[in-house]
Amino acid sequence: MMNKLSGWEDTIVALATPPGIGAIGVIRLSGSNAFPIINALFSSKDLLNKPSHTLHVGLIKEDENLIDEVVVSLFKGPKSYTGEDVVEISCHGSPYVQQLVVQACVHKGARIAKPGEYTQRAFLNGKLDLAQAEAVADLIASNTAAAQKTALYNIRGGFSQVLKALREQLISFSALIELELDFSQEDVEFADRKQFYQIIQSAQITTAQLLHSFQLGNVIKNGVSVAIIGKPNAGKSTLLNTLLNENRAIVSEIAGTTRDTIEEVLNIKGILFRLIDTAGIREHSTDTIELLGIERSLEKMRSADVVLYIFDVNEISKEELVAISTQLKANKNTLILVGNKADIIPEKIILQKFNGVEGIQFISAKDNVGIDAVKDILFASTVNELPATESVSITNARHYEALQQVKVSLNDIEQGLNNQLPGDLLALDIRRCLHYISEITGDISNEDVLDFIFSKFCIGK
Amino acid sequence: MMNKLSGWEDTIVALATPPGIGAIGVIRLSGSNAFPIINALFSSKDLLNKPSHTLHVGLIKEDENLIDEVVVSLFKGPKSYTGEDVVEISCHGSPYVQQLVVQACVHKGARIAKPGEYTQRAFLNGKLDLAQAEAVADLIASNTAAAQKTALYNIRGGFSQVLKALREQLISFSALIELELDFSQEDVEFADRKQFYQIIQSAQITTAQLLHSFQLGNVIKNGVSVAIIGKPNAGKSTLLNTLLNENRAIVSEIAGTTRDTIEEVLNIKGILFRLIDTAGIREHSTDTIELLGIERSLEKMRSADVVLYIFDVNEISKEELVAISTQLKANKNTLILVGNKADIIPEKIILQKFNGVEGIQFISAKDNVGIDAVKDILFASTVNELPATESVSITNARHYEALQQVKVSLNDIEQGLNNQLPGDLLALDIRRCLHYISEITGDISNEDVLDFIFSKFCIGK
Repeated sequence: MMNKLSGWEDTIVALATPPGIGAIGVIRLSGSNAFPIINALFSSKDLLNKPSHTLHVGLIKEDENLIDEVVVSLFKGPKSYTGEDVVEISCHGSPYVQQLVVQACVHKGARIAKPGEYTQRAFLNGKLDLAQAEAVADLIASNTAAAQKTALYNIRGGFSQVLKALREQLISFSALIELELDFSQEDVEFADRKQFYQIIQSAQITTAQLLHSFQLGNVIKNGVSVAIIGKPNAGKSTLLNTLLNENRAIVSEIAGTTRDTIEEVLNIKGILFRLIDTAGIREHSTDTIELLGIERSLEKMRSADVVLYIFDVNEISKEELVAISTQLKANKNTLILVGNKADIIPEKIILQKFNGVEGIQFISAKDNVGIDAVKDILFASTVNELPATESVSITNARHYEALQQVKVSLNDIEQGLNNQLPGDLLALDIRRCLHYISEITGDISNEDVLDFIFSKFCIGK
Repeated sequence: MMNKLSGWEDTIVALATPPGIGAIGVIRLSGSNAFPIINALFSSKDLLNKPSHTLHVGLIKEDENLIDEVVVSLFKGPKSYTGEDVVEISCHGSPYVQQLVVQACVHKGARIAKPGEYTQRAFLNGKLDLAQAEAVADLIASNTAAAQKTALYNIRGGFSQVLKALREQLISFSALIELELDFSQEDVEFADRKQFYQIIQSAQITTAQLLHSFQLGNVIKNGVSVAIIGKPNAGKSTLLNTLLNENRAIVSEIAGTTRDTIEEVLNIKGILFRLIDTAGIREHSTDTIELLGIERSLEKMRSADVVLYIFDVNEISKEELVAISTQLKANKNTLILVGNKADIIPEKIILQKFNGVEGIQFISAKDNVGIDAVKDILFASTVNELPATESVSITNARHYEALQQVKVSLNDIEQGLNNQLPGDLLALDIRRCLHYISEITGDISNEDVLDFIFSKFCIGK
């Protein structure tokens, strides 16, 4: 546990609910003076001796000025979010009234909280480790089932458990080495080298799995960008509309998310696919368009994770498709080929026509035939399987980078073992490895890193 | 108390906090199944036998799908906002998570609440009368001290008390009349006619006071619109900026209020003055402008409560000012004359120059001289005095209209007394008068009126 930061003995106050007009707004106090401050403002009864986890209805007054009728929630530390005494004031949902309540708390000695300061205090008080704290921000930002599940699993310590196990392996390894060092004069090898190897190999496997999960974690957290391209009249807009109408993202019904973003977002099994609006993607453009109909969208296409090329099976030759496919494959993105209007001619003829071109999904966008298969292909193209509820995925670049260093350190240890490096040198590598693990959990951290991490939180969390 | 409306036996659910991302969001359940519904979702402990006004930390799960870690507040009816069993679920501030929680409640039998339905239930359960319920919406919309105080006073029953007293006067009058009717065969006059007069006169005074307060109440609730007009270079923009910079409305610091509105709003002693952005009001226009420099703004000016005409004392003759003043007074708005750049020539000469023109406030906008006096004049022009904390102001047009009818009925009763109308006819007028009072408090109301009133509330209140 790191030293406590300066200034955090203060009692802090902030609006915990989103700004704006609503039925209610909640203002949160945390710190050693939280109870005296609310008691000085709450005129209806004495709150100082009330039990923790109780609710109290009454009036907030400042110098005889009535501010609001409120409900006060009391949480006595350490049984609270921050581990300190916490008070939540549920007042009427007027921004003006909320500001009066916050100001009244400030007048009684509270300080306006910085972004993420409540969670930072929870971390400093040992209620959460740093990986759990970061998952809190991820949960708040989550907008799909997969993101919500992953974040919640990590808040509850899923990732931290894996790290803890990894750490314990290394410490047990370290203990063996240290023992050997103590008796180094006697040239005894207490530690069985075979056991060393097993521990390091096990740690390497765990690290590799975690690193591997980052691709999925990243997809879960940030979604997948898909460029749908094709010639005019190939059926781009029909496909897009069919995909979207069938699967309009659940978030589209939530106020506060902009429609602009939503229109292009497709939720497949809890993963967000962002359909990139390349030029002409939504309309049948009548502009003169170059032969392959793709140059125009190339720039956007290059930044996409997946390129979905849609063509009219009746309007393209096998040779042309192969040429296009080859050109598209030159990019590093995943390519999906979709043959539209496949209902017009018999299936047999189509299959014959494109015989030898692999992985075409034939559909009729107009009649909604084959659309589910397109979704399955989209999903499979980036995500091999949905994360099990109880599995760890890394979603955070900071964790990924630290784990890369863990991997390097583990490889160094392995090499050291192979080269029969003395124990004290191996111990250095182990310490380096433990250092990077501790960076993730926050057992080792510095004020700058913490400030950076928590500054990305919203005020009041 | 009116009959309960159909469909209100349901348990309702809605997000009570503003939509959007925040630290936390609160979802509110109300109804007879509120406790069983939360208990079915809350996997951490049995909530059914927990005492009212307690807080419980735990997990929300639906069919083994973990939704969130939450804090649940329990309020057992009738000691709750609605008078029913109420549960508040404080979850992480992700709109996605909030929607999952709301949906889970719906799956367990709750219905999505209509706007204002919680307050409507509070009304139907006798926790609030209709005037108090309407004050809840006013409090949520309040953005000045005066509006907040008035609304809070009325939530706490200030207005209702006055109405109750008025009602009791009429009922005592009615009782006397009824008594007389019972003995009408015997030609006895139990009720002293003098006492009748006193009661009616007292009721008339109360009604007149309430009606009179509507002007102030309206100003408190809706603010005062002020058109600042004048020739180019008279100093309109300097005056406007000096006024605004000195008194930037407190709400400007609250997220969620748009800057567009705020820029033009001046808070003087808790009353909002909306400075109307007439053409050229912010810039020194270089367009050709007609002689008096006011025609252009006439339309906007006509809708303003107050017209502030600013002129350069060095550039206008007394005759011209009188002509302008006369023209402006033809409108029904309040006129304020402000002579700017009064620092350039000695005060004596200025006073001499405009001798005979009443009510000019001389200022130097540039040097911030006389600005406070302008504010005082603006305030005094529409509001004679700030409402005392403990005084009733009518802020609601519905109440005003009903009170107009009360006034008419009282006058009819007075006339009836003068014309020695028989008691049974007087009783009819009294009943009519009581009817209108009951409309305000909701003792008499119909579903349409209620639906209209509560539809203007936000969801979750």
